[in-house]
Amino acid sequence: MGSTLAALNQAPAADFVSALGAVFGHAPWVAEAAAAQRPFPTVGALFAAMGGAVHGASDARRLALLAGHPEIAGRTARSGDIAPDPIAEQASVGLDRLSDAEYARFEALNASYREKFGFPFILCIERHGRASLLRTFAARLACVPDAERSTAEAEVMRIAAIRLNALVDGGGGLPTTGRISTHVLDTVRGRPAAGVALELVEFVSPTETAIVARATTNADGRTDLPLIHGRPVPVATYELRFWLGDHFRRVGPSLDLDLPEPPFLDVVPLRFGVGDPEAHYHVPLVATPWSYQTYRGS
Amino acid sequence: MGSTLAALNQAPAADFVSALGAVFGHAPWVAEAAAAQRPFPTVGALFAAMGGAVHGASDARRLALLAGHPEIAGRTARSGDIAPDPIAEQASVGLDRLSDAEYARFEALNASYREKFGFPFILCIERHGRASLLRTFAARLACVPDAERSTAEAEVMRIAAIRLNALVDGGGGLPTTGRISTHVLDTVRGRPAAGVALELVEFVSPTETAIVARATTNADGRTDLPLIHGRPVPVATYELRFWLGDHFRRVGPSLDLDLPEPPFLDVVPLRFGVGDPEAHYHVPLVATPWSYQTYRGS
Amino acid sequence: MGSTLAALNQAPAADFVSALGAVFGHAPWVAEAAAAQRPFPTVGALFAAMGGAVHGASDARRLALLAGHPEIAGRTARSGDIAPDPIAEQASVGLDRLSDAEYARFEALNASYREKFGFPFILCIERHGRASLLRTFAARLACVPDAERSTAEAEVMRIAAIRLNALVDGGGGLPTTGRISTHVLDTVRGRPAAGVALELVEFVSPTETAIVARATTNADGRTDLPLIHGRPVPVATYELRFWLGDHFRRVGPSLDLDLPEPPFLDVVPLRFGVGDPEAHYHVPLVATPWSYQTYRGS
Amino acid sequence: MGSTLAALNQAPAADFVSALGAVFGHAPWVAEAAAAQRPFPTVGALFAAMGGAVHGASDARRLALLAGHPEIAGRTARSGDIAPDPIAEQASVGLDRLSDAEYARFEALNASYREKFGFPFILCIERHGRASLLRTFAARLACVPDAERSTAEAEVMRIAAIRLNALVDGGGGLPTTGRISTHVLDTVRGRPAAGVALELVEFVSPTETAIVARATTNADGRTDLPLIHGRPVPVATYELRFWLGDHFRRVGPSLDLDLPEPPFLDVVPLRFGVGDPEAHYHVPLVATPWSYQTYRGS
Repeated sequence: MGSTLAALNQAPAADFVSALGAVFGHAPWVAEAAAAQRPFPTVGALFAAMGGAVHGASDARRLALLAGHPEIAGRTARSGDIAPDPIAEQASVGLDRLSDAEYARFEALNASYREKFGFPFILCIERHGRASLLRTFAARLACVPDAERSTAEAEVMRIAAIRLNALVDGGGGLPTTGRISTHVLDTVRGRPAAGVALELVEFVSPTETAIVARATTNADGRTDLPLIHGRPVPVATYELRFWLGDHFRRVGPSLDLDLPEPPFLDVVPLRFGVGDPEAHYHVPLVATPWSYQTYRGS
Repeated sequence: MGSTLAALNQAPAADFVSALGAVFGHAPWVAEAAAAQRPFPTVGALFAAMGGAVHGASDARRLALLAGHPEIAGRTARSGDIAPDPIAEQASVGLDRLSDAEYARFEALNASYREKFGFPFILCIERHGRASLLRTFAARLACVPDAERSTAEAEVMRIAAIRLNALVDGGGGLPTTGRISTHVLDTVRGRPAAGVALELVEFVSPTETAIVARATTNADGRTDLPLIHGRPVPVATYELRFWLGDHFRRVGPSLDLDLPEPPFLDVVPLRFGVGDPEAHYHVPLVATPWSYQTYRGS
Repeated sequence: MGSTLAALNQAPAADFVSALGAVFGHAPWVAEAAAAQRPFPTVGALFAAMGGAVHGASDARRLALLAGHPEIAGRTARSGDIAPDPIAEQASVGLDRLSDAEYARFEALNASYREKFGFPFILCIERHGRASLLRTFAARLACVPDAERSTAEAEVMRIAAIRLNALVDGGGGLPTTGRISTHVLDTVRGRPAAGVALELVEFVSPTETAIVARATTNADGRTDLPLIHGRPVPVATYELRFWLGDHFRRVGPSLDLDLPEPPFLDVVPLRFGVGDPEAHYHVPLVATPWSYQTYRGS
Repeated sequence: MGSTLAALNQAPAADFVSALGAVFGHAPWVAEAAAAQRPFPTVGALFAAMGGAVHGASDARRLALLAGHPEIAGRTARSGDIAPDPIAEQASVGLDRLSDAEYARFEALNASYREKFGFPFILCIERHGRASLLRTFAARLACVPDAERSTAEAEVMRIAAIRLNALVDGGGGLPTTGRISTHVLDTVRGRPAAGVALELVEFVSPTETAIVARATTNADGRTDLPLIHGRPVPVATYELRFWLGDHFRRVGPSLDLDLPEPPFLDVVPLRFGVGDPEAHYHVPLVATPWSYQTYRGS
């Protein structure tokens, strides 16, 4: 539903601005400035031009860019806004499922923040799990204004990069995505473990988890698709859980492994933290019925 | 508070029976039969003589031995009994913390069992976690009477062995105990990881855990005492949890490890099942900030 | 320099036979029989037709196919032959470097074999290291004639498959190749180990090794190309040797790892056997200065 | 054949000096000084007194202590000397097996060293493998005289500590010994691997190895005794070799592991360096037929 870069390069300026105005929601002047610098050889060059327009703008305009940004989980977001699909962006972190109490607390944080800094709290929420969002909000509320304004502007750029990628056909090519993948090796038999059920959960709080993905390993011991891909990996603690006991129950009889009940290893949890949403987290499981190992692979 | 084997060998028969009568709670005739065969070179020989008395007794006596056994979690147990410390034995599995609904269900199972087999459900409960107890109860209720009677008698012998061990000074020496131990190695530095906080929890149901032990590793990367020792390891699923992230936060700065926040590994859970209560489960953690492995060691 | 399958399908029969006659060196009738069954949708179908021609031929013709095969390391091979490049095929296993004594022993084995079975010893030598070749020769000399004749014919088919692959442009596609690859992970830093020098050696005898490949890991911790690929992996014992100590000497100072001299791990040897020449042997090294692991990966 | 510390504390001074004079071979005055400070509560206190006597002596005496020390592998050592069993001490590093050429080179090094520093090259050779000895000799020859004199004196103290330990009954208790030990775990079956043949070799040069010990694992997967113990572990590169393939050939059939020939893992070499002769090097092997890991344990 987007446009190709080639089409954007050749379109009338008004169409270009219309196509890309939402990248910086309340600031069509960014797209206008970029339109004048066409053609762009890559989406990266286009994005750099937009960034250059922001950084070269007057202080008042830059502040207005922040001040006009929709509040996260605020009334604006709930009641609709001109920014592209903020509800969908915010849904990723579960803000649409906040309890009334959490919503009230969030509103209070938003109010404190806006009072201290003069613009709403801006965060590229697709890059954060719920626990990380709350930690980050508290940490940023404590920052000094100058540093915080830079941070907010950097977040605006991150949000813009994701939007631009979505609007340009062919993926856009800005580095806004990460991955979580896995691989299960059965070292009793020296081959990939096929047919292993697994799930990926995120710790939305220290004691509460939400299922992110479920899959079964294929003949190569991998999942057909990465468990998270094509988007940032939210900063969070995750747990991969493998139904390893079922695997060895299936292959065990032919091997006469004589496994006890309950088995030594049944559901194997691998718990790991993600701190870099644009990175690849390859988390393999190399296992026997009596041992396993994992490591951050590549 | 017990007696030595030497003293038991030389005591008047009545004293011997008085000292060991509770090993088979309602059946002093077992101790009487053993008294006549003294002296015993080892506690094992004494226990074998008691077992011989049971197996050589008349069918009626053997059935009475089962029929007179206190019910688990039944009214008898709640209101006191002549067997040695049944409350303490049963407390190990959390039966004293059953909800009213669970208590009612247990009573119903007990009634069905007694009706089918003519004697109460007997299980050496120190060898079972709560989930295993319920699984075992259901499985045994489905057994054919002859097999179940043999199973019940074997459990009587297991209960007797633990009691005999407790009554004879110097440990008794019957193999009624198992162990869970661990060892944390830091392979960034090639040495034991000291000062690592850890806890052992038991899954009392698929989603509910109870803390069994907390400890901190010593200079050799081990806990000063095994996490479970000196008693059977209840059949259950356990999880060892290591505060590995804290360890590398402490040693990381001197190594300039440059760890992210959240770290890749923070609390590391090792989940494993115990099926053999008299075995040693050595479950080490060999780790870096980015990898770990475990195996059933020795 | 080969032909495409499409061209072979459309060529005059004589050209087809001329292009593929050498696949079964002394038996152009195989190619002739296949020519009549054109067109073939795949090289596999073409190869199956050639195999069908062999298996459907008279006993005398099949025996002649074996009897006419050049002897390995025999006078024929030394003095030239009509088969395509037998010297190059035999060079792979080092037969061109036999000492006079080894050559004499080989000649004696060849003579015994030919006397017992009536045809020369045939083996697809690209699938064997020197030690495996000698073991296989001794084992086959002890076989009963009927079984050995089947074995010899199977080897003729293996040789033919490799030759056919080489003669048809685009790789041919018959599964005649295996691979040895590796991957070095540095789990101190949780990332691939780049710039690690390594070598692959083959044990040509229990005490003698020959270097097969030398490489340095790239940014992903892998070698740019597999260490063996595009050909069968000779059945042999191999050793991968990694200059791991040099790696941690390079990254160690920035991490303040304080490594001893000599280091605990310096050159790390991973010794492994290959029994299936058409398989992929992925042999990774997951390491710190004080630990490592390997496994057959995928 | 030694004396107890108690006996030494009470003996006439002359007997004390006679018993311990050889600890500092050409310097009975060290023992004389220590005799006057008796009694000693521990061998450590006795050794400290001897060290105090050395460090408190006149410069001339201390230089004489070095100058009078027998040369390593020199004529003195070959023709006998008053120091206790220097031949046996030197045999440990294989100096008695030097070729004539090596002997000549050693003599030349000795001469250069003596000319530069005015005393012979002194090294506690039980702490060095042959390669380390040669490396150390070359490195020390390049040192400045003051530093080298301190190094030489430290080596005299190391030699003295080992001699004193040997002369005092009950082990003496000075920390002069290290250990190499191993442990083999079979993680297919989750238990120690018993009956595994293994050997420990030392690299006496980059390409030449000498067997240090051979053993077979016991029921706990360990060797009955450490492979090196009760003495320093010479600084060297070692290789532990495990006949793992034989182990899985034995247990494989009952497990129906269907292992190839040659197996993926047959003889597994673990190569590691020792830089601290008084440390414990625990080098376990945790293995399946298709994977293994090792680490410096404790």
